Amino acid sequence: MEPRTCQVELGENSYEIRIGEGVLDSAGAEIRSIYTGKKALVLTDENVYALYGGRLQAALAGVGIRPVFKIVPPGEGHKTMQTLAEILSALAGGGFTREELLIAFGGGVPGDMGGFAAACYMRGIRYVQIPTTLLAQVDSSVGGKTGVDLPEGKNLAGAFWQPRLVLADTDVLATLDDRQFASGMAEVIKYGCIFSKELFGLLEEYPDREKLQKKLPDVICRCCELKRDVVQRDEKETGERMLLNFGHTFGHAIEKLGGYETHTHGEGVAMGMVLAAHTGERLGLHGPKEAERIAALCQSFGLPVKPPYPVTEIPKLAAIDKKAEADGVKLILLNGLGKAGVYPMPLPRFEALMQEVEQG
Amino acid sequence: MEPRTCQVELGENSYEIRIGEGVLDSAGAEIRSIYTGKKALVLTDENVYALYGGRLQAALAGVGIRPVFKIVPPGEGHKTMQTLAEILSALAGGGFTREELLIAFGGGVPGDMGGFAAACYMRGIRYVQIPTTLLAQVDSSVGGKTGVDLPEGKNLAGAFWQPRLVLADTDVLATLDDRQFASGMAEVIKYGCIFSKELFGLLEEYPDREKLQKKLPDVICRCCELKRDVVQRDEKETGERMLLNFGHTFGHAIEKLGGYETHTHGEGVAMGMVLAAHTGERLGLHGPKEAERIAALCQSFGLPVKPPYPVTEIPKLAAIDKKAEADGVKLILLNGLGKAGVYPMPLPRFEALMQEVEQG
Repeated sequence: MEPRTCQVELGENSYEIRIGEGVLDSAGAEIRSIYTGKKALVLTDENVYALYGGRLQAALAGVGIRPVFKIVPPGEGHKTMQTLAEILSALAGGGFTREELLIAFGGGVPGDMGGFAAACYMRGIRYVQIPTTLLAQVDSSVGGKTGVDLPEGKNLAGAFWQPRLVLADTDVLATLDDRQFASGMAEVIKYGCIFSKELFGLLEEYPDREKLQKKLPDVICRCCELKRDVVQRDEKETGERMLLNFGHTFGHAIEKLGGYETHTHGEGVAMGMVLAAHTGERLGLHGPKEAERIAALCQSFGLPVKPPYPVTEIPKLAAIDKKAEADGVKLILLNGLGKAGVYPMPLPRFEALMQEVEQG
Repeated sequence: MEPRTCQVELGENSYEIRIGEGVLDSAGAEIRSIYTGKKALVLTDENVYALYGGRLQAALAGVGIRPVFKIVPPGEGHKTMQTLAEILSALAGGGFTREELLIAFGGGVPGDMGGFAAACYMRGIRYVQIPTTLLAQVDSSVGGKTGVDLPEGKNLAGAFWQPRLVLADTDVLATLDDRQFASGMAEVIKYGCIFSKELFGLLEEYPDREKLQKKLPDVICRCCELKRDVVQRDEKETGERMLLNFGHTFGHAIEKLGGYETHTHGEGVAMGMVLAAHTGERLGLHGPKEAERIAALCQSFGLPVKPPYPVTEIPKLAAIDKKAEADGVKLILLNGLGKAGVYPMPLPRFEALMQEVEQG
């Protein structure tokens, strides 16, 4: 099957996302279409390198691009300024010029760090994203957000820097374990909830990993298009783009209650989306069906839908998380499936609502 | 005297450079005109803090801005990724939000690092430059170049990030020692050489530090205007902006021959400008007067004009420095005082010319 293409229009920073089975093996020709140089620094992690490093190397060699691999240990714990400095030194030590290329190859960690290194090296070089997790394919392919964590918090250092090309191979998702795959699905379901009843309905038609497999290129492409449209309408992240946080305010609080080790990001988001739907129901924004359908769809992909904590603990944590806003928390709630809005929520009202939800 | 103002027009990134005696003491009101917040992180070094920290603190307190000082050791040796990480943690640890401000207060090192930290923190916050050396006032106030050094080379990591305001106090230059002042003067003389016969003539009228003192606001403002005009015409640094490297290709080679400890940057540039003028003379681009007048002006400000090395050693070092260009070195040479051009120079021709210059 021919890969799908999602075109991201950002003037001179426009680029294509190519999505499909085996896109990794045609990475050479794809990259050659935007780069005439002879070498590329490939940032990846040990796991991705072991599984797919050889295939990327072969694809690049086929068009005369010599990869210089910079391989970092896997995991968010290495998404640091220290690792960033190492990547920059790998570029400098490898004699990379301003005209040469970086390829970020892996999940969110190599993606975010590789993009940031490209933004910083010699005040900015070109880079290509090859995301290898479902979460990275639907979430990081659009928006140009790059960065690293500081000891004080996640993603506190970074840059907006657009890739020249994104290659999302749906075959490589086969080596994700079920929990990693489900974590990405929570974001996919989110796009359906806030922007597209049709996407949500499609997921309900193919309600597990095996059934969805053949539909993945279409589904990932649709998510990228939906995110692209909102990012293009709201580049500065002031208004509509906030809708992408649906489920996340609740989800972050749940992740925090679990000490960040108990739940994956997607698991937090899944529980958060269901809670947001219960909240919208209490406020009369929609009926009871929304929470039921979101919960059923999440569960069919193996995602939890009920936090193992009293939900009354959530408002205070959410308020701390968003401390910049003095007048309470801005909740993203649905106005029915496929439509969402921003609802400012003073803390006492939020707490009363969670008490109602807790009591069922 | 009222401060001079140089307006830098960059669309939504436009800003003013305010230049004059005592501008530091009016920093509060000046900053209040572009910032409504209550605190600011002030990046500075131990020397600048000891001399002027109290005055800046008082100026900010006068308008209700509380400074949080991050004080780093002085010197280029601390312009590293490690120090950058510390500055970012100071911002995060101090609870700074995306809407708050960084002030870079000092010479080129706090200026470059502070600007880079502002570019990176939360993917970009506002910053104000308060340059306290002559070199920083004429060189770093315009262009938006920020960055740190890597072990592999200078300024290899960074970003283009524009300040919201630049405050250049000519009084604080009084505490520069003569050698530091002269180093900045080399860049001032450079602007005259390449862009303005009038500026060059003015400097000849006030040919030492004491005589020039009262003219400094005008002279610094003129340098900023000249740099602004070329940067606005050539934002991407492909053509005309290269002229700013007059004296620098020779100068870097001389600095390298001295092991980077013997000569200041400005001393290298001064010797480099005189050598460039001798080269232009050999090529018939202008007569012998240019080299004589540049040498006399440099010497009157205490700058050396003749490198203590055989100049025949320069071409190979310059070629290594500019290794990206296969077909030799692009020399910036004068077409008379106040006018410059780019002259591609194959290595053998360059070597032959230096042999002629060496033999006088």
